[in-house]
Amino acid sequence: MLTFPLMAEKECLGVVLALNKIGADTFTAEDVNLFHKYMNFAQVIAMQHYTAYMFNVESRRSQVLLWSASKVFEELTDIERQFHKALYTVRTYLLCERYSVGLLDMTKEKEFYDEWPVKLGDVEPYKGPKTPDGREIIFYKIIDYLLEGKEEIKVIPGPPADHWALVSGLPTYVAENGFICNMMNVAADDFFTFQKEAVDDSGFVIKNCLSLPIVNKKEEIVGIATFFNRKDGKPFDEHDEQITEALTQFLGWSVLNCDTYDRLNRMEYRKDIAQEMLLYQSRCTTAELQSILNTNEKFDSEPEDCDQKELYKLLRATCPPADNVNGENLYLFSFSDFPVSEFDLIKAGIRMFFELGVIEKFKVPAETLTRWMYTVRKGYRSITYHNWRHGFNVGHTMFCLLQTGRLRKYYSDLDAFAMVAAAFCHDIDHRGTNNLYQTKSSSPLAKLHGSSIMERHHLEYSKTLMAEESLNIFCNLQKRQFETVQHSFDVCIIATDLALYFKKRTMFQNIVNATEPMPDEKEAIAFISNNPTRKEIVMAMMMTGCDLSAITKPWEVQSKVALMVAAEFWEQGDLERNVLDQQPIPMMDRNCSEQLPKMQCGFIDFVCSFVYKEFSRFHKEIKPMFDGLNNNRAHWNEQAEVYNAKMKVIDEQKKKLEEDEARKAGGGGDGKSKTCTIC
Amino acid sequence: MLTFPLMAEKECLGVVLALNKIGADTFTAEDVNLFHKYMNFAQVIAMQHYTAYMFNVESRRSQVLLWSASKVFEELTDIERQFHKALYTVRTYLLCERYSVGLLDMTKEKEFYDEWPVKLGDVEPYKGPKTPDGREIIFYKIIDYLLEGKEEIKVIPGPPADHWALVSGLPTYVAENGFICNMMNVAADDFFTFQKEAVDDSGFVIKNCLSLPIVNKKEEIVGIATFFNRKDGKPFDEHDEQITEALTQFLGWSVLNCDTYDRLNRMEYRKDIAQEMLLYQSRCTTAELQSILNTNEKFDSEPEDCDQKELYKLLRATCPPADNVNGENLYLFSFSDFPVSEFDLIKAGIRMFFELGVIEKFKVPAETLTRWMYTVRKGYRSITYHNWRHGFNVGHTMFCLLQTGRLRKYYSDLDAFAMVAAAFCHDIDHRGTNNLYQTKSSSPLAKLHGSSIMERHHLEYSKTLMAEESLNIFCNLQKRQFETVQHSFDVCIIATDLALYFKKRTMFQNIVNATEPMPDEKEAIAFISNNPTRKEIVMAMMMTGCDLSAITKPWEVQSKVALMVAAEFWEQGDLERNVLDQQPIPMMDRNCSEQLPKMQCGFIDFVCSFVYKEFSRFHKEIKPMFDGLNNNRAHWNEQAEVYNAKMKVIDEQKKKLEEDEARKAGGGGDGKSKTCTIC
Repeated sequence: MLTFPLMAEKECLGVVLALNKIGADTFTAEDVNLFHKYMNFAQVIAMQHYTAYMFNVESRRSQVLLWSASKVFEELTDIERQFHKALYTVRTYLLCERYSVGLLDMTKEKEFYDEWPVKLGDVEPYKGPKTPDGREIIFYKIIDYLLEGKEEIKVIPGPPADHWALVSGLPTYVAENGFICNMMNVAADDFFTFQKEAVDDSGFVIKNCLSLPIVNKKEEIVGIATFFNRKDGKPFDEHDEQITEALTQFLGWSVLNCDTYDRLNRMEYRKDIAQEMLLYQSRCTTAELQSILNTNEKFDSEPEDCDQKELYKLLRATCPPADNVNGENLYLFSFSDFPVSEFDLIKAGIRMFFELGVIEKFKVPAETLTRWMYTVRKGYRSITYHNWRHGFNVGHTMFCLLQTGRLRKYYSDLDAFAMVAAAFCHDIDHRGTNNLYQTKSSSPLAKLHGSSIMERHHLEYSKTLMAEESLNIFCNLQKRQFETVQHSFDVCIIATDLALYFKKRTMFQNIVNATEPMPDEKEAIAFISNNPTRKEIVMAMMMTGCDLSAITKPWEVQSKVALMVAAEFWEQGDLERNVLDQQPIPMMDRNCSEQLPKMQCGFIDFVCSFVYKEFSRFHKEIKPMFDGLNNNRAHWNEQAEVYNAKMKVIDEQKKKLEEDEARKAGGGGDGKSKTCTIC
Repeated sequence: MLTFPLMAEKECLGVVLALNKIGADTFTAEDVNLFHKYMNFAQVIAMQHYTAYMFNVESRRSQVLLWSASKVFEELTDIERQFHKALYTVRTYLLCERYSVGLLDMTKEKEFYDEWPVKLGDVEPYKGPKTPDGREIIFYKIIDYLLEGKEEIKVIPGPPADHWALVSGLPTYVAENGFICNMMNVAADDFFTFQKEAVDDSGFVIKNCLSLPIVNKKEEIVGIATFFNRKDGKPFDEHDEQITEALTQFLGWSVLNCDTYDRLNRMEYRKDIAQEMLLYQSRCTTAELQSILNTNEKFDSEPEDCDQKELYKLLRATCPPADNVNGENLYLFSFSDFPVSEFDLIKAGIRMFFELGVIEKFKVPAETLTRWMYTVRKGYRSITYHNWRHGFNVGHTMFCLLQTGRLRKYYSDLDAFAMVAAAFCHDIDHRGTNNLYQTKSSSPLAKLHGSSIMERHHLEYSKTLMAEESLNIFCNLQKRQFETVQHSFDVCIIATDLALYFKKRTMFQNIVNATEPMPDEKEAIAFISNNPTRKEIVMAMMMTGCDLSAITKPWEVQSKVALMVAAEFWEQGDLERNVLDQQPIPMMDRNCSEQLPKMQCGFIDFVCSFVYKEFSRFHKEIKPMFDGLNNNRAHWNEQAEVYNAKMKVIDEQKKKLEEDEARKAGGGGDGKSKTCTIC
């Protein structure tokens, strides 16, 4: 006997035997030599076949991975669709007649009331097979791919236990143990009893199969994939295991996508629920609506059932006249909200829209206007400064700039409507802390918005109100008009981020410079209104002018408001100290409160002065604001000087005290450097 | 010359040439024959080499895919970390000296204020290269893997344009065109100018490189991967392209994971923001707190600064005495909320906790109790039936069952506290529509909760309030106690889903049956209190008894309440008809309102009767409820009979009318079947 092993690397592929030399008792050395020579060639051929087969295996494996990946990332979806798509797309690479995937119920815990009968002993506890992580093994769905003959896919929801794919007990066994099971000859197996006859009317009979668990990254078995009958009739080998294992491994990992999709959906539902509840809690109630638009008393009916003209009449009558809101005049820059109650400010807000003439023109339902204005008011929190009074004041100053300041000539009626509405909304839901605080405290707002954090929040909330039909004062606009309004809201509300103020300063100044020498008003109007960018820049600067307008108010107003602003800053400073454990900047440090007048002067000089100076130069009608500012500047400066003088006295006293101390000590002998009394 | 091509499948690997036969002018036919014989062997050897190489390529490709997949699904993360992990894990399969990935800025649109200078003509518009989808090409980060010598990874955020990996312009070119670029010899290239000298102090010099775009499923280029210097010194070939293309393709697809993670986070921030706003809007305000616990007036200070004993005294004094809440007695099952205002019901709610003796025992801060009770009240919507009055009544009946009904003996003080609190919360934020309506209208609540939809929502909201320190009446409990309370809330609130009522009926009846013959009260107490499951079942049935208790109230109360319940049902029926375009069931159909008495009788017989009968059998003190029920049953039956009688009369009239009609017509000749007058 001559033998020769056919090797592939270290693996033996087979052995060639030459038996019983013809015509002699033994093989000669020459025979051996010749045999070996031939065998070297045979070895090369065998090796080539082996390598080609291995190439085919690896090639199919990478195709399986690439194709299933292509499907897995196609879109986010549930596990069933994901598995289905991936398994379908790789079917030509698996070289088997049929395969099925059984999906496992992932429920871990039962409802307490379902446990009662078990705990009471009325019902036997579950004693059936469980997955390694303790779940009862329940296949809630089978997806069955028949590739032989006519291609067919069957989806069997809630398959019965005696379904042919389950009845052998193999999938349950794999789910219980997590093993890969290669059944070389199912007919001969006596551990699992596979269905011997055709499984269905396709005539398909199971000959051999390969079953693998699909395990996610949390090590939980989410399903079982079983491949039946290798195409060439042979049983599955270790290379088939390699391919199918790569596939099931990949599918298992990709469950992360489905889980995430599920989490995303659930998060969205929670968000939707919270937003709906928020709207319910924060919107103007029927009773609140009636407290202003009292149709119950007047017409004994709900506003929806009344004639709009009648409602306008009723609403106008309810709102205070513009020139006498508790003695204050809405057309004056010096208007003060202090004599007016927060409730009456809602009415004053409504009044301004009537003064603008936009209500009738844009067919704003009276009840919608009232509800919106009331809801905006409720959107402001009861905080020290950035509360409804501030929101109202900014809306009011916008009204004044347009009307009294005559800036309206550059804008359409719709622009004016949007600008005043946006001004009212510009700080809605402010929490009394600034953007930097949001960032430092890692608030969800800071995580959501990269820049202009609070402003983007005010804007989003304003738009949420707009999206609600019963609150949408722009409900009767055409689509294009509505988009214009939305853009104006974007520009106006984002513009109140003071961090952006310095970006627009020069551009605004250039516009003022350009219009100043224009002899004809029409030319200036054309220069601005025909250029959307210039309109936006002026609009944005108007918002800054409104937001800071407290600084231009009569001194008795400004001195009070400045303290409110400061108090809110100090509260933030307290939070920084106590919650964030950081030292606040002097502006927010209540221990530096005496420096307030000095800081006010600085704020006027470096920020405010430019705004009102340029606006006064732009439109002389706005000069009262600049005058107010300068007057306040003088007051703050006076206080700052009193403080400086006080500090000077203290400094001098301190210095004197130190000198006295030094002198006292010097009597003993501190004055070493001057004279040496001892030595 | 003899030639022979070496083929692998259809590809020519090379050609063997035998030139100039020695000692003759031409090759003979024999030479050709011999040459071909040898060449057949050479062919096999070449083929084997080629196949082995291809096997290596495919094997590396599937490893690259499998390993990168393993990392991509490891956890959800941002694109940088994901790419980094995946690229690091496949490094040994790429057989190159170095590779780098450049990440592209995905920003598509600029902020409006950044566009202003361009629109005004102050700044030149961007004219540089753009991606096919129109983004400016900005590499915001480079991750650089040096595999030669000492392994090293460098992360370069905001790389300068003259960084060696960018300076050639190749990554920008690839980002612009989306091509795969294989630079066989960078030194000789004159389209791109690669750095000729060593790129850094590692001494690494670029010889050849392969650059590929990483494209996501939306066909956007998200980054560029460049592989430098194949390990064997040769340029990269098409097989290297295959491997790296599989990798970059996979990485590109996997961006879906990062995008989803980002979406998930943003959704969570939005949810958090909405929930925080909701809490702000729905919680008891300082003014509301003072309207009950008026420390401002009494002590001229905030509750937080007062002594709890003093606060308890103040709060007890503010709340009505239990036996006289506007003439009603809290200890009677027949208590009616009608004479009490919604505001005063808040105080009555607080009173009951004092009566239970749990406030002092569990150190509930008076201001927390007040705030919580007020907030629960505000949590109920102004709807027809499931409003605060209903919430209060259920809390009150729980109080009565425990105290007057003497069911308290089975429970600890903490249980009793939790049960009454849960009862108050059990329908919080109800919207006047039932679970089926949530499902049919696909509300977010239905999408979030699979079963007991509304109940799970009431429970979640109750727990949200508990999670808020200033509202948490259980704030001074130990962890274990707090968990007990949470579980009681689960049991109590979920139990109000009537769909679960039928599951617990028999279990409750068995408990009643078991305790009935017990001669000693202590035995019954032990039977229940020592068994957590029995405690839970009784607790759950108590909740049902509370929820349905309106049916046991004096007739003048029940007759009013039943109409409110019906009215809410009818409103849902209207929604089903108008919004869902479905025919409501008779119970919810206002056209069937006359059948209300009959339906009430049915409801009593099939649902309520069991509850109160069993409870009366369980504890005779509860019999007043069963008596009330039977009394109401008689009233409803009477009305049903009136209706029946009316219907009978109508039916008879109708019948008579039809007969008259028939007779009239019969005068002509309808009575065909009787006689044939004509024929």
